[in-house]
Amino acid sequence: MNLILLFPDDFIDSTDRVRLQGRRLTHVLEVHRASVGDELCVGVLNGQIGTGTVTRLDASELEMEVRLERMPPPALSLTLVLALPRPKVLRRVLRSVSSLGVKRIVLLNCSRVEKSFWQSPFLNEAVIGDQLVLGLEQAKDTVLPEVLLRPLFKPFVEDELPAIIEGTLPLVAHPAASAVCPRDVRQAVTLAIGPEGGFIPYEIEKLAACGFMPIQMGERILSTETAVPVLIARLF
Amino acid sequence: MNLILLFPDDFIDSTDRVRLQGRRLTHVLEVHRASVGDELCVGVLNGQIGTGTVTRLDASELEMEVRLERMPPPALSLTLVLALPRPKVLRRVLRSVSSLGVKRIVLLNCSRVEKSFWQSPFLNEAVIGDQLVLGLEQAKDTVLPEVLLRPLFKPFVEDELPAIIEGTLPLVAHPAASAVCPRDVRQAVTLAIGPEGGFIPYEIEKLAACGFMPIQMGERILSTETAVPVLIARLF
Repeated sequence: MNLILLFPDDFIDSTDRVRLQGRRLTHVLEVHRASVGDELCVGVLNGQIGTGTVTRLDASELEMEVRLERMPPPALSLTLVLALPRPKVLRRVLRSVSSLGVKRIVLLNCSRVEKSFWQSPFLNEAVIGDQLVLGLEQAKDTVLPEVLLRPLFKPFVEDELPAIIEGTLPLVAHPAASAVCPRDVRQAVTLAIGPEGGFIPYEIEKLAACGFMPIQMGERILSTETAVPVLIARLF
Repeated sequence: MNLILLFPDDFIDSTDRVRLQGRRLTHVLEVHRASVGDELCVGVLNGQIGTGTVTRLDASELEMEVRLERMPPPALSLTLVLALPRPKVLRRVLRSVSSLGVKRIVLLNCSRVEKSFWQSPFLNEAVIGDQLVLGLEQAKDTVLPEVLLRPLFKPFVEDELPAIIEGTLPLVAHPAASAVCPRDVRQAVTLAIGPEGGFIPYEIEKLAACGFMPIQMGERILSTETAVPVLIARLF
């Protein structure tokens, strides 16, 4: 937790003071090992970053006086359309992409996504939110990404995707592609990444018909967890 | 398992036939759902890649006739010097870098590495080997990376590192650096990545004195799991 993310409810009345308990209190006690007077990096959800000066700290509560002074780091101009990974992988991928500054993530069904993944409790909005917050705290960001669940491939690609890709470079990672993933594109991108085992030919055709260019990263087949940061680092 | 990695002991006498049990048999039965006559992608440890034709398959054994025909994908010209991460993270990082084609990994002690990490059973040679093999099977590679454990920072940096970096571009990831991580370097690199919390100033000074250039990736602080693939994708 390189930044303590603050929510509207944390603020005492309409002051610049916050009162924290639970996970953030425990972290400040056990990892930061802070004392009264220490300054910690804080940020307000979807708002500015600054400093929290510890004014009270015991086993039950942490109070800080907050001074906000700068904007969070710039977001990536990227919409990530990701075949829903297996639940444990999903948690790590959400933390990772949140820390990298992705602000819109579509979790999509595909032929090779196991049906059971859509029943996972990890798809609960609160659980997804927790992972995104962990990524923000890691990267010292405050702007919560938006996550859309799309359990139907065809209607999403036909009805929603054309508007999403407008004004962006639409790319689909596909090991059999002839084009290599471009570097340092300096423009908005929509990036589609398939499940373990890849998109099936029909899905690649539908994405290509929508305007997506298939790109590859060499002959190595990477897991979703590795492919996602690798592709993002290549593009931006 | 996109490739079934074969070891010398798997071969029956001095033939081109292999007999497998255990994890690989289970995977072929449950994930590949193969039958006699099917062709599976195989590779020989530190050797060539090819096809295994299933000649016998039941609950106790898999036999294949192996035809080897091509070289594994090229390795990355990279030595990764990584502050020892916490054990659970280490396992995933080893799989990830093995899949990316890193062939030499030094796990190094630093001031901010918790002493207990060096006692982890995950540092056992066989356990490390298992993770590296999983990475090779993922990426369809056969060449096992070398992992060096270096629990003493100063003697490693002073006595061993000068020979390791010879003929390479030595870079150390450091959020406070002024230089940005270069892209697509097209030369051999030695890349040092610190622990969560970073290298301490003394360690950066020692690495700089050895010839390492500090580089950064922007204001976001990334976890080791995300930083490693991101930096590798940027450099290569």
